[in-house]
Amino acid sequence: MPQPTATLLVTCPERKGLVARLAGFVADNGGNIVQSDHHTDTEAGLFLSRIEWELQGFGLQRHEIGKEFERVAQEMGASWRLRFSDDVQRIAVFVTRQDHCLLDILWRVRAGELNATVPLVIGNHPDLAPVAELFGAPFHHVPVRFNDRHDAERRKLNLLKDNAIDLVICAKYMQILSTEFLAEAPPVINIHHSFLPAFVGDRPYHKAHARGVKLIGATAHYATPDLDEGPIIEQEVARVSHRDNVSDLIRRGRDVERLALSRAVRLHIEGRVMVYGNRTVVFD
Amino acid sequence: MPQPTATLLVTCPERKGLVARLAGFVADNGGNIVQSDHHTDTEAGLFLSRIEWELQGFGLQRHEIGKEFERVAQEMGASWRLRFSDDVQRIAVFVTRQDHCLLDILWRVRAGELNATVPLVIGNHPDLAPVAELFGAPFHHVPVRFNDRHDAERRKLNLLKDNAIDLVICAKYMQILSTEFLAEAPPVINIHHSFLPAFVGDRPYHKAHARGVKLIGATAHYATPDLDEGPIIEQEVARVSHRDNVSDLIRRGRDVERLALSRAVRLHIEGRVMVYGNRTVVFD
Amino acid sequence: MPQPTATLLVTCPERKGLVARLAGFVADNGGNIVQSDHHTDTEAGLFLSRIEWELQGFGLQRHEIGKEFERVAQEMGASWRLRFSDDVQRIAVFVTRQDHCLLDILWRVRAGELNATVPLVIGNHPDLAPVAELFGAPFHHVPVRFNDRHDAERRKLNLLKDNAIDLVICAKYMQILSTEFLAEAPPVINIHHSFLPAFVGDRPYHKAHARGVKLIGATAHYATPDLDEGPIIEQEVARVSHRDNVSDLIRRGRDVERLALSRAVRLHIEGRVMVYGNRTVVFD
Amino acid sequence: MPQPTATLLVTCPERKGLVARLAGFVADNGGNIVQSDHHTDTEAGLFLSRIEWELQGFGLQRHEIGKEFERVAQEMGASWRLRFSDDVQRIAVFVTRQDHCLLDILWRVRAGELNATVPLVIGNHPDLAPVAELFGAPFHHVPVRFNDRHDAERRKLNLLKDNAIDLVICAKYMQILSTEFLAEAPPVINIHHSFLPAFVGDRPYHKAHARGVKLIGATAHYATPDLDEGPIIEQEVARVSHRDNVSDLIRRGRDVERLALSRAVRLHIEGRVMVYGNRTVVFD
Repeated sequence: MPQPTATLLVTCPERKGLVARLAGFVADNGGNIVQSDHHTDTEAGLFLSRIEWELQGFGLQRHEIGKEFERVAQEMGASWRLRFSDDVQRIAVFVTRQDHCLLDILWRVRAGELNATVPLVIGNHPDLAPVAELFGAPFHHVPVRFNDRHDAERRKLNLLKDNAIDLVICAKYMQILSTEFLAEAPPVINIHHSFLPAFVGDRPYHKAHARGVKLIGATAHYATPDLDEGPIIEQEVARVSHRDNVSDLIRRGRDVERLALSRAVRLHIEGRVMVYGNRTVVFD
Repeated sequence: MPQPTATLLVTCPERKGLVARLAGFVADNGGNIVQSDHHTDTEAGLFLSRIEWELQGFGLQRHEIGKEFERVAQEMGASWRLRFSDDVQRIAVFVTRQDHCLLDILWRVRAGELNATVPLVIGNHPDLAPVAELFGAPFHHVPVRFNDRHDAERRKLNLLKDNAIDLVICAKYMQILSTEFLAEAPPVINIHHSFLPAFVGDRPYHKAHARGVKLIGATAHYATPDLDEGPIIEQEVARVSHRDNVSDLIRRGRDVERLALSRAVRLHIEGRVMVYGNRTVVFD
Repeated sequence: MPQPTATLLVTCPERKGLVARLAGFVADNGGNIVQSDHHTDTEAGLFLSRIEWELQGFGLQRHEIGKEFERVAQEMGASWRLRFSDDVQRIAVFVTRQDHCLLDILWRVRAGELNATVPLVIGNHPDLAPVAELFGAPFHHVPVRFNDRHDAERRKLNLLKDNAIDLVICAKYMQILSTEFLAEAPPVINIHHSFLPAFVGDRPYHKAHARGVKLIGATAHYATPDLDEGPIIEQEVARVSHRDNVSDLIRRGRDVERLALSRAVRLHIEGRVMVYGNRTVVFD
Repeated sequence: MPQPTATLLVTCPERKGLVARLAGFVADNGGNIVQSDHHTDTEAGLFLSRIEWELQGFGLQRHEIGKEFERVAQEMGASWRLRFSDDVQRIAVFVTRQDHCLLDILWRVRAGELNATVPLVIGNHPDLAPVAELFGAPFHHVPVRFNDRHDAERRKLNLLKDNAIDLVICAKYMQILSTEFLAEAPPVINIHHSFLPAFVGDRPYHKAHARGVKLIGATAHYATPDLDEGPIIEQEVARVSHRDNVSDLIRRGRDVERLALSRAVRLHIEGRVMVYGNRTVVFD
């Protein structure tokens, strides 16, 4: 059973002494750093850092840390987030009819691989209600029709709010999310069933088959209004051959999709992903 | 030291009995099949087959095999190629300034990994002459200028003919080959430094970096007039991270390029690749 | 929906004409070969072959094929097996307390990835009964105590027989199976949580951690009386680092175990694995 | 052209404030940290850290850094090493008859992938003298016979000393190095042609073939008196099948060996590998 930790994710303009300043903040309050990592994008003039320390023996109470750190942040011109390793993330999973990613997420949550709970599963079709129920995850059927898309999104946003959701996972959710929805919703991780930027858009396995590729892939990324253009968190590939027809690619792809998605979710939940521009820094 | 073998590569319209007919041809002449494989593309109604047998004890002389098989082929409506495993393929390598693929091919030839010889290296810059010379491969500098591109291609075609070249390898040859050149030249294998169809065109590592991908790739394919659209033979990928700048991607990419290219060349030389439409069947 | 096929798996002493003989058997009865592959182990003087053809339009009824082929087999001195692609394999899964492999197999069966049914799950602990029930698979608790091991195996053999089981999967079943059990049981596929032959025996992740390896693996193999020495069907690996403690290795290993096991089971079910000596030929 | 950096590698007993202390040392002298990473082995009670900063604008001259840091180190009870990114490492390569690893290292050095020079190649056979010469690397033939092994090692140690060698690479050097040699020599990186700890000792590809594995591997590790038991730096694998005979495994293995070895050498040269006990921490 690991000790609970606090993690600060900090972004600010690059200058000297930032690592020492952050490590000093922890050390001055008697904290023991478990892991710290940082990255400087010289072109962007940006410093990004993740610093994690044990809460046991730390001189500040949980609720005091942010307030204290805000002074450091102002001095650095930094934006920041604070997370505690024992905070259980509340995940909503959006699905259509394919169950493999949903089942995988639910299993990993139950197995303790992801420090999370799934109080909400939303399907635009009712098919996966039984899968959600198997794992005790409440399922809501929110159909999306052409002329009530706005209402459907409103319903989904309300459900997210009512359930205090921290993260949305589009687990093969075959619906586009509007700019308005994304602006109001918590972060959304999507799994795209191709090795982006190859085969954007729909039916990527059909396109991959038509092109005769020798590897297929999957890409887990944050959803943005530009479809399939969001910051990439994780990618995975699998070898295929001329023997594989489209159905085989879809089947092989399922394994790749689950792996890329679950790794991305884990990285996000552990506060290891920082986004800037259209890119991610992944401190693993 | 493996026994020499004969290999038939056969393409014809799909119908029953083709495998038996081919295996029967070999067996009737006292041949011992070493490996046989075939593939039916049901959509295209096409049968593709590769059958390899030991020459020792075979009832037909090498020069008789084609003539005899032609009767079978006509009956099947087949097009076909015959190769002997001890035929040394004559390779020309086209290069610009990057040496890693050239060096790798030359080393593999010398190490006996590829049953081939390299009697011709053509560079549009003179830089790699010393590398070719290290391995005793004759180097020709054929510069390509805007208004004499036609003449340069003519010179290259003459060199290919004079050296009885069986296969051209574009080993990071940063020049487009014209439709006319490709029509006259032997098969051309190109290595593209991306995971096609992602990042077609030039500067793929810059594009990959800008997109923030987590894997980079390389694609070995037959060159066709449509740039980066030729039939794919082999692809390979490598993991990258936010720490890798464009130079790092280029460096990591070199390993991936060499592996994908050398595997593709080996598959081609062993007569394991069959092209139909824009796709390949790889019998490995 | 693919057409049903018949597949013959044939082993016999090497000699000329075997491929033609097998293909001829199919062709003479009007069969259309979908895939055929073979392998000759020259050292062992052994020919191994897999030939699959469409049943539609084949001149022999299903029940006649074996009888007819037996004459060919006698002529070849061959042992053989016949399977039909639409035969649903009856699988028993043996488990202890870890659920990931069981859940994965049950999900793949339900998703139609494996043409199989799971009428029997046996646990030496009762923990996984709920998982089996989720998927409607009957669970039997057969505890194994030191002095009634013989009785427990007898109970298991009876359950296998009563349920007409074709294949046993040890899905992290932490019990040794006796020579007597293996002699009476159908084929048994085991997943060992290491890259065999590294880290044989128990607690391989602890050993891998102590050795400081940079990759961990899993091995799916047929169970034999020699523990961890059975013929290997499939292996898979994953990259690890100094940051991974034993728990992390176990977690990462679960993904690798599931992939290696499910691929091995699929290969077995599709009749693509042939065993000779302590090795397998995998016709994929 | 990257700016030159200084890197400190520090090992000491675990306690609070170490990261801040190290980062503070750099910041107090006006240094800009490029990358810093650390690892705590809780069981061993050990803290290991790597901190790299730009020399430009740093308040201490190169020769002053160590002296200044020694005071910090004493306070921490730390052992440490200091390296500068523009220090060119002097590598000796030990070879027997196989040239692929030697050629790969020499090429990477020439291509600028490794910030190193190779002033010394030692072969116990003369075969690879021409390869060394191609790249202008001085070759010495030091035969090893049963009863003059001690003299041969003495000759090698003298050559290492005379050439001020920083790192020895055993690039398929098929000779055991004695405890005495290892005690006097600089660090030695060996490439073992198996996925250790599988197939220790000689002829691993023969053993791998006999065992029927589906993946082969290579392991780059620091040489220690216990053969094949040294701390592992990097491992790589490749997929093989029943079609691959021992020669094929050897051929495929060469690619894997080169990749694992060159990555390990690069990690070592960049000061990213720290050894403790029989393990490595790799800060990549």
